[in-house]
Amino acid sequence: MAENHRTMPTRDQLRIWRDYIETAQALSTSLGSRLQSESSLSTGDYQVLLALTEAPQHTLRSSELATLIGWERSRLSHHLGRMEKRHLIRRVPCADDVHGVDVTATESGRAAFRAGSVPHLRAVRELFVEALTPEQLAHLDNTSAALRRHLGVDAPVAKERAT
Amino acid sequence: MAENHRTMPTRDQLRIWRDYIETAQALSTSLGSRLQSESSLSTGDYQVLLALTEAPQHTLRSSELATLIGWERSRLSHHLGRMEKRHLIRRVPCADDVHGVDVTATESGRAAFRAGSVPHLRAVRELFVEALTPEQLAHLDNTSAALRRHLGVDAPVAKERAT
Repeated sequence: MAENHRTMPTRDQLRIWRDYIETAQALSTSLGSRLQSESSLSTGDYQVLLALTEAPQHTLRSSELATLIGWERSRLSHHLGRMEKRHLIRRVPCADDVHGVDVTATESGRAAFRAGSVPHLRAVRELFVEALTPEQLAHLDNTSAALRRHLGVDAPVAKERAT
Repeated sequence: MAENHRTMPTRDQLRIWRDYIETAQALSTSLGSRLQSESSLSTGDYQVLLALTEAPQHTLRSSELATLIGWERSRLSHHLGRMEKRHLIRRVPCADDVHGVDVTATESGRAAFRAGSVPHLRAVRELFVEALTPEQLAHLDNTSAALRRHLGVDAPVAKERAT
């Protein structure tokens, strides 16, 4: 019992935890369905195209891409197969590494990304930014940073990107 | 351009948005892998068993279960198939509805849930609660509530549950 008191969260702490996770998921889902209906890109397509669009020659090694967007290799590989069929990306074996694959955003992939980004950013503003006061945004920034520090993860690579 | 100024988030607002979503995802992933290694339950198994464990007779209509945990019907159906093979749940067609299925947590499913919940709650405390000051927790609570209100989603059903 004493052990439990030391190591278990209180009912209130648990509620805040679940609300945090479920709210972030609900927001992701809403953003994702807006993106899909307004641009025919899924959230996954958007993440992949964002990373490629900002890379030199719109190209990344698939292993770098996986790390950058935080996906498992197998999930990424399946997803890239579907994107390739839709001509959004192209995969080419690396010249200098028999196991490596270079992934490039095609012209039409980049056009789809540009077309999708305006409604996507507008949705981020409407669903997220406008829900919060500047003070709440600052607190949230602070909280995310504390959680990441504690978790030992670096600030997301996205930090330096446009979105 | 004027249109953009009104509708586009600033670079800083976008950073806070991405950090928020990516931090919540990183936490979910960490919790999930701790859960899996300490109890052989996935996060999905845990969510399903939590909902069933707290229902009368440990049983819910599959459609109710889907709503409660916020999953698509097809995802739930596949997941339940895998859980049934592991004897964690049982599915029985409803007597009063030819299309309905009742999902019940089995004895061994409930035992697995009980065994998993202690390390899981401990991990929530270590990875989440201990990262934040009481003030940060209160701010986060406040922010989640504002986001959900704005999104028009109800407070999660989980609110009244033990975890």
